[in-house]
Amino acid sequence: MRPRRALYIGRFQPFHLGHLQVCQTIAQDFELLVGIGSAQESHTLDNPFTAGERHLMIERSLDAAGLEDYFIIPLPDVGRNALWVSHVASLVPPFQLFFSNNALPRRLFQEAGYEVRGAPFFERDRFSGTRIRGLMQGGKGWQECVPGEVVQVVEEVRGVERMHDLAQHDEDA
Amino acid sequence: MRPRRALYIGRFQPFHLGHLQVCQTIAQDFELLVGIGSAQESHTLDNPFTAGERHLMIERSLDAAGLEDYFIIPLPDVGRNALWVSHVASLVPPFQLFFSNNALPRRLFQEAGYEVRGAPFFERDRFSGTRIRGLMQGGKGWQECVPGEVVQVVEEVRGVERMHDLAQHDEDA
Amino acid sequence: MRPRRALYIGRFQPFHLGHLQVCQTIAQDFELLVGIGSAQESHTLDNPFTAGERHLMIERSLDAAGLEDYFIIPLPDVGRNALWVSHVASLVPPFQLFFSNNALPRRLFQEAGYEVRGAPFFERDRFSGTRIRGLMQGGKGWQECVPGEVVQVVEEVRGVERMHDLAQHDEDA
Amino acid sequence: MRPRRALYIGRFQPFHLGHLQVCQTIAQDFELLVGIGSAQESHTLDNPFTAGERHLMIERSLDAAGLEDYFIIPLPDVGRNALWVSHVASLVPPFQLFFSNNALPRRLFQEAGYEVRGAPFFERDRFSGTRIRGLMQGGKGWQECVPGEVVQVVEEVRGVERMHDLAQHDEDA
Amino acid sequence: MRPRRALYIGRFQPFHLGHLQVCQTIAQDFELLVGIGSAQESHTLDNPFTAGERHLMIERSLDAAGLEDYFIIPLPDVGRNALWVSHVASLVPPFQLFFSNNALPRRLFQEAGYEVRGAPFFERDRFSGTRIRGLMQGGKGWQECVPGEVVQVVEEVRGVERMHDLAQHDEDA
Amino acid sequence: MRPRRALYIGRFQPFHLGHLQVCQTIAQDFELLVGIGSAQESHTLDNPFTAGERHLMIERSLDAAGLEDYFIIPLPDVGRNALWVSHVASLVPPFQLFFSNNALPRRLFQEAGYEVRGAPFFERDRFSGTRIRGLMQGGKGWQECVPGEVVQVVEEVRGVERMHDLAQHDEDA
Repeated sequence: MRPRRALYIGRFQPFHLGHLQVCQTIAQDFELLVGIGSAQESHTLDNPFTAGERHLMIERSLDAAGLEDYFIIPLPDVGRNALWVSHVASLVPPFQLFFSNNALPRRLFQEAGYEVRGAPFFERDRFSGTRIRGLMQGGKGWQECVPGEVVQVVEEVRGVERMHDLAQHDEDA
Repeated sequence: MRPRRALYIGRFQPFHLGHLQVCQTIAQDFELLVGIGSAQESHTLDNPFTAGERHLMIERSLDAAGLEDYFIIPLPDVGRNALWVSHVASLVPPFQLFFSNNALPRRLFQEAGYEVRGAPFFERDRFSGTRIRGLMQGGKGWQECVPGEVVQVVEEVRGVERMHDLAQHDEDA
Repeated sequence: MRPRRALYIGRFQPFHLGHLQVCQTIAQDFELLVGIGSAQESHTLDNPFTAGERHLMIERSLDAAGLEDYFIIPLPDVGRNALWVSHVASLVPPFQLFFSNNALPRRLFQEAGYEVRGAPFFERDRFSGTRIRGLMQGGKGWQECVPGEVVQVVEEVRGVERMHDLAQHDEDA
Repeated sequence: MRPRRALYIGRFQPFHLGHLQVCQTIAQDFELLVGIGSAQESHTLDNPFTAGERHLMIERSLDAAGLEDYFIIPLPDVGRNALWVSHVASLVPPFQLFFSNNALPRRLFQEAGYEVRGAPFFERDRFSGTRIRGLMQGGKGWQECVPGEVVQVVEEVRGVERMHDLAQHDEDA
Repeated sequence: MRPRRALYIGRFQPFHLGHLQVCQTIAQDFELLVGIGSAQESHTLDNPFTAGERHLMIERSLDAAGLEDYFIIPLPDVGRNALWVSHVASLVPPFQLFFSNNALPRRLFQEAGYEVRGAPFFERDRFSGTRIRGLMQGGKGWQECVPGEVVQVVEEVRGVERMHDLAQHDEDA
Repeated sequence: MRPRRALYIGRFQPFHLGHLQVCQTIAQDFELLVGIGSAQESHTLDNPFTAGERHLMIERSLDAAGLEDYFIIPLPDVGRNALWVSHVASLVPPFQLFFSNNALPRRLFQEAGYEVRGAPFFERDRFSGTRIRGLMQGGKGWQECVPGEVVQVVEEVRGVERMHDLAQHDEDA
């Protein structure tokens, strides 16, 4: 009998060791679907990486961690909360559970009748996207917060240089 | 001879006694069109209710107040101020007057050649959407600010529970 | 106890006596929701009237026919079949049944778990939107296919003149 | 005293001698605004050239013809007829007349209260976009239908090669 | 040294043995990226399956065929040919080659400087999406044109019943 | 031999003497393309003027300054950074250089392989859009920061009155 499928959505800017741990925990009991949220965003300080770059980070990290039978799906924002669940459900294979710690998606999937669980996070203070992006702007200390495969992808796409450029002060001339 | 038609637009998150009073005052002299602004929004703390839920609040409240010959029209945002008046005019029956206290829609309808009047509001401090949504998050005190029919709709859709869930703190994991 | 609500969607280009009959039949047993489909369309030979003009046709016709307790809601297309039911459900008050004779919306509402019934149409050959729009282009014979209130609205917005103008032959210069 | 401004809209796929003649005629009496319609389209057999390529064709041709004081404005489609006039009016400088031979834009600008005139076309059979695009696919005969500056632009962007490629038969594999 | 990555895009309505053969051939020499085109489409006779359902068909078929190290990415249409390549490039991991037999995407990727090759198709008459969808409407003969995993997915989502329902004749009432 | 073309993008809310200086400097060495950024915005305190009004300001100012052989192109936002360069490139004639002092567009054009240079600005404190819009709200002092032709356009469209109206305090009733 096939295991049930569980969806876990994040923005993964970047994919870090906390995310990896969640994926590993879910994959012990379920077939894992990883949704890349805000897939249309890139090249900002809050969302530096494209969906394709994030896809590469996740696939390589999950492979290196020995996971099999997972799916990775970019999920562009749809701009209307009332359509979000249908939008996601049309883009990913059928699933039975939804994992998230964020209030809005939890509520939306609950109203749609899905079983919702909290993501089993460890060391949230250390493995926070905001904190890691801050470290990346400074250029150091971020490498130990992400899988080695992510370090490799960031270097291939020259991600730290990109964040440095985007952080330059703009004036409204 | 048919009376002239007047359009009154609000977000109605939720529809409260101040809104009802405006509707009653306008309906004394005009055929009333009620436009539900930002119809595409829902499930946020500032815009908790869907357009359909707001439609139900307004229709039941106006019926209970004895109004007849009114129209209720959901109006999604169009995202470009220069198109707003044409967008509204295509979605609602022809009208001659526009009632609003908000600077931007007043200006846009004025530039388009409509007669614009201020909405005849009473007790604005008490009947404020921001204040009432704050009370709803706390769970009490909001019921006396809205028509009884709105209390009923909020309970039917479990609106206070929804706002409570949406208010949970999110972390950027 | 409140009656159950039933949704009936059409494009109503224009609202004709066949539509009226469906509305009357549904309203005998249910609280009626009338959805104006393809609300964003206007000024073409297939979709000559704006959503606001169609709203006016329907409201006046239902009032003249003695119906009460109905809702009329413009429904812009959303461009993705997988989101259609959520889109509609967010714009109209909660409903339990869906009436339609069209294959696509029937299937979509069925997959979403709604009870779907066929619209109780009479004289479909005579009361067909395509046929009536054809008659309107010719300028005669259409009046006996629509309620008197629709004749009035078409005249107020000079609808036959509009269709005549739109039918002029274009060349790709 | 400044002359009145007149707007003339076409798709200009490509800009040909018939278009040039219209521009010259209008510019004798008015300050000319040239709107590039369906600006978002490119790389199809009906719309082979980008808005930027068409802009270049028109600007060079009008300069070579000795015109001054004209404006060229790309106009993306807005997808809703009821918003078209407001959309155009927000993107181009204020104007008083609208020139077109096409039924839909004529009607839309008339309903919005603009003065509308027919474009003064000569030799419409010969100077037809459809016919000229057909000649371009064949690779010859099109050069004498367009200004010399357009021949130059088409060659710079390798437009005939592009049309040849796009005309290859596709199969739905 | 990592192999080069190659992108192969189709609509995969449904994924059939011809597609599988292309994937196997490309995967011999490259790391394979499979793009699901027109990902936003579903529930029509030409595009019956959602992106999520197609994703499941492909992933299971490639796994069963023993492929590893592939990526599957849903690609919604962007509606502007001039943006297509950038849109795709932002959603998929970096790639060096593009495989397609369709004229438009071939041309667009060529203009953007990519190396483009034809997809190595066998038995195109038999393995055609149009033909297989026709067989599915009839209900038989399609099973031998697709991998066994696709038969399984179509049955799980009751795809043949869906196509049967969508094929009912609609009338414009 | 034709000079190379250079693109300079700003929002030009309004076009001021600092912008004019940049245009004059670029035009000494290149054929100048002026892109009107955020073309879809208008009627807000940060973006008071429509693209058409800004087009008129720029065209008249450049003409009065004796420039020839320039192009002015409205550029609506596209909402996705990864598509921005392709979007711009499809709307403007082919160009070789990009001038900007803003971090995000500089980075995006650099990643796309364009040569990027800083805009040669003088007196940035005095000629700042934010500062000049503040002066316009107050109603005086702004005239000496913009070309005389801009003063004229602002008066024609009653721009100061518009900004005054938009600055009225709104309450969320």
